[in-house]
Amino acid sequence: MSTSSPVADLASTLRRRNEGPVAVLTLCDAKRRNALSLATIAALHVALDDIAADAGIRAVVIEAEGPAFSAGHDLKELTAHRGDDDGGRAYFTKTFGNCAAMMQAITALPQPVIAAVEGVATAAGCQLVAACDLAVAGEDAQFATPGVNIGLFCSTPMVALSRNVPRKHAMELLLTGELTGAQEAARIGLVNRVVARGQALAGALDFGRKIAAKPASTVSLGKRAFVRQLEMPLAEAYAFTTRVIVENMLHPDAAEGICAFIEKRAPNWGKP
Amino acid sequence: MSTSSPVADLASTLRRRNEGPVAVLTLCDAKRRNALSLATIAALHVALDDIAADAGIRAVVIEAEGPAFSAGHDLKELTAHRGDDDGGRAYFTKTFGNCAAMMQAITALPQPVIAAVEGVATAAGCQLVAACDLAVAGEDAQFATPGVNIGLFCSTPMVALSRNVPRKHAMELLLTGELTGAQEAARIGLVNRVVARGQALAGALDFGRKIAAKPASTVSLGKRAFVRQLEMPLAEAYAFTTRVIVENMLHPDAAEGICAFIEKRAPNWGKP
Amino acid sequence: MSTSSPVADLASTLRRRNEGPVAVLTLCDAKRRNALSLATIAALHVALDDIAADAGIRAVVIEAEGPAFSAGHDLKELTAHRGDDDGGRAYFTKTFGNCAAMMQAITALPQPVIAAVEGVATAAGCQLVAACDLAVAGEDAQFATPGVNIGLFCSTPMVALSRNVPRKHAMELLLTGELTGAQEAARIGLVNRVVARGQALAGALDFGRKIAAKPASTVSLGKRAFVRQLEMPLAEAYAFTTRVIVENMLHPDAAEGICAFIEKRAPNWGKP
Repeated sequence: MSTSSPVADLASTLRRRNEGPVAVLTLCDAKRRNALSLATIAALHVALDDIAADAGIRAVVIEAEGPAFSAGHDLKELTAHRGDDDGGRAYFTKTFGNCAAMMQAITALPQPVIAAVEGVATAAGCQLVAACDLAVAGEDAQFATPGVNIGLFCSTPMVALSRNVPRKHAMELLLTGELTGAQEAARIGLVNRVVARGQALAGALDFGRKIAAKPASTVSLGKRAFVRQLEMPLAEAYAFTTRVIVENMLHPDAAEGICAFIEKRAPNWGKP
Repeated sequence: MSTSSPVADLASTLRRRNEGPVAVLTLCDAKRRNALSLATIAALHVALDDIAADAGIRAVVIEAEGPAFSAGHDLKELTAHRGDDDGGRAYFTKTFGNCAAMMQAITALPQPVIAAVEGVATAAGCQLVAACDLAVAGEDAQFATPGVNIGLFCSTPMVALSRNVPRKHAMELLLTGELTGAQEAARIGLVNRVVARGQALAGALDFGRKIAAKPASTVSLGKRAFVRQLEMPLAEAYAFTTRVIVENMLHPDAAEGICAFIEKRAPNWGKP
Repeated sequence: MSTSSPVADLASTLRRRNEGPVAVLTLCDAKRRNALSLATIAALHVALDDIAADAGIRAVVIEAEGPAFSAGHDLKELTAHRGDDDGGRAYFTKTFGNCAAMMQAITALPQPVIAAVEGVATAAGCQLVAACDLAVAGEDAQFATPGVNIGLFCSTPMVALSRNVPRKHAMELLLTGELTGAQEAARIGLVNRVVARGQALAGALDFGRKIAAKPASTVSLGKRAFVRQLEMPLAEAYAFTTRVIVENMLHPDAAEGICAFIEKRAPNWGKP
C-alpha cells in the first residue's frame, strides 16, 4: 500500500527512505549490530536535521536491519582511542556528547519519532528507543542497559530510560544489566505496544500515517509544548500551556479544523 | 443508604447535592455533551469555592448525566468569538485561563475530589478526570485527547494527563487522538479502578465515604503537602514533610487518633 | 550456598550478618512489629554508615522477623513524650528528622539496597520499602500508608511513595489508608517482583549477588548519578551524565570490562 522511494544514503550505516509523509531511517550496519559509532550518530543527527526542515515529512520511524536493533556505542571504536595522548578523553567526550545531542534532537524535532524495535536494543540502543516519542516492539524484542556488566554504567541511557519507566524498574535494568522482554517493556512504559514478530515496522508506520493525517502545525506545537511543560511546576505549566493553546486557537488550522468539526465535514488542512 | 439533599442550582449545567459529608457535583448539560462552557467552568469553580469553605463536606464527587462525561471545551461558543475585534484572543484567553484556574482549584481544594466517569471523557473532559485526586470509571468509559484531530492540540489537558500517566502513553493519546478504554486507563494510571457499567458513582461515593470517616484536618493537610512535596527535590521534600508531620503530631486529632489506636478503641474526632 | 557470619549486634532490634558480599540487616523486634523506634532508626543509620565504609560489601538486603515487615514509627514511644515541656515537639522533630535522614542515607549509600518484604509494611515501614533501590515481596506481603486513620497523615512516607508509584495510586493509598497486596504493589511500581511466600529474602539475595558480581566502582557511580540526574531538566541531565560516563570510561574497571568483552573473556575486576 505504501510506496518506497530512496532519498539518500546518509552513510554506509544508515539509510533513509520516505513512505509518503513518513521518513523511515534504517540502521543498516547489521554486522556491527547497528552500533552507534561516531559516524552513525552523525548520520542520524544529519538525517534528523534534514527532516526538521522538510515540510513534506510528518513523522519519522527508526528501524534496524539484522538481529539487533542496536547494541549501543561502538566499544571497539572507543577502545581504539585509549592510546591517544589524553587516554581517549577528548574522543570519549565527543562521542558521548554527540550522542546526547542526537538524542535531544529527537526530542526537539518538530515531527514525532517512532521506534520500530525487532531484536535486541541495548545500552545506547535502548536509550534510542526511550528517546523516541513512541515505540512499537515485535514480540521477541528485548531491552537492556548492560553497561554495568563491563564496568561502564549506562549513565547517559538512564536519562531517557528513567523518564519513561518507574524508578524501581529503571534501577533494576541499570543495576542487573539483564534483558527484559517486549511484554514487560510495554508493561513498564518503555514501549507503547507489542506486535507479532516482524510487524514492528508496520506498527510504527501505522502510528506515523495516523500522525501524518493531522495538521503538521498542531503536531509540532503540541510536541514542543509537551516537552517544555513536563519540566515545569503545575502552576507554571498551566500558565505556559494556556498561552500555547490561545495562540493555537488563532492559527488557521484550528479555525478550519474546528469549523469542519462543527459542520460535520472533513477538514481541509491545505498544503504544508 | 445515603440520603440526597439538593443544595443549589449553580447553573443550568451543574447541580450540587450532598450525600451526607460527600458533595456530588453533576454535570447536567447532556445535550451539549457536558461541554465545559465558560458558564460551566464558572459554576464548577464557584461550587469548589463553596465546598472549600464548607466544613461539613469531607470529599467531592464529580459525575455527569448522559452518554458523555464531558466533551471538553464548548467549540461553538469559542468559534462564535472569532468575529470579535481581536479575532477572539481575549475570549479564548479568558476561557482557557479560567479553565486552568478551575482545574487548579481542584488541586488546591482541602477536600479530595473523585471523578465518577461513565461514557466518554475527552479533551478538557479528560483533563478534568486527570485533575481529580482519584477516579473511578465504569467499564464502558472511554478517554481521549483528540484536539490534534481538529487542529487544536490538547495543550492544557496534557498538563494534568502527563502528571498521571507514563510519558509514552501520554504522547500516544495526544498524538493519535484515539479513544482509550477504561481498563487501559486504569493500567496506565489515569483512573484508580474500573467498575461495572453504571457503578462509577457508587464506586466514587465509596471512596468519598471512606475519606469522610477520616479526620478532616488530617486529610486536608495531607493533600496539600502531597501536592507541594511532589514538585520538590528529595532533600527539600523530606525537610518540608518533616515539618508538616511534626505539626500534625501536635494537632489534637493526632493526639486522639494515636491514643485511641494504642487503647484499641474507636477515635472520637469531635465536630469538624 | 551462602555462608552466614554474624557481624554485629547493632541493637536489640537490628542484627547484621554478611552473606558473602551482601550485608543483610534484619529488623528483629517482632514483638513491637519492627517499629521504627528512635533506637532502631539510629541502628539502621549506623549500620548503613558502617556499610558505606566497607569495601567488602557490594549490596544490602533489609529483611524482618515476624509477621510484620515494619509497622512504622513507634507510636507508644512518641506518645510518651506528649508530657514533655514542649508537648513533644523537640522529640517528634528528632524522631521524624532522624528517620528522614536514615531514609536518605539509603539513597546516598554507594551500595544498592534491596527490601525483602514478608508480611505487612505500613507507614514508615512502607516508606522503607519505597526508599530502597529495589524490593522483592512475598506473595502475602501487604502495604499501606494508614496514618490518615489515626489523625497522622503519612507525610514523610509519601515522599518516597510518590516517587515510586503513579500519582493517583499514591493518593489512593494515602487517603484511604487501606492495605494493598503484593501483586498490586508490583503492578504500580512499589516492588520489583513478587515471589512465593517466604522467598522474599532469597529473591533479594539473588538481586544482591548479581549486583555484587559487578564492579563496585561502576555500581556506586551509577547509583549516585541516577539519583542526581532524576532531579534535573533533560538538557542538564544529559550534560551531567555525559561528564559522568566520560570519567567512567577512563576508570580502570571500564578499561578491563570493555577489553574483556571485546576479547570474549571474563573480566578481572581485581580486589575492591
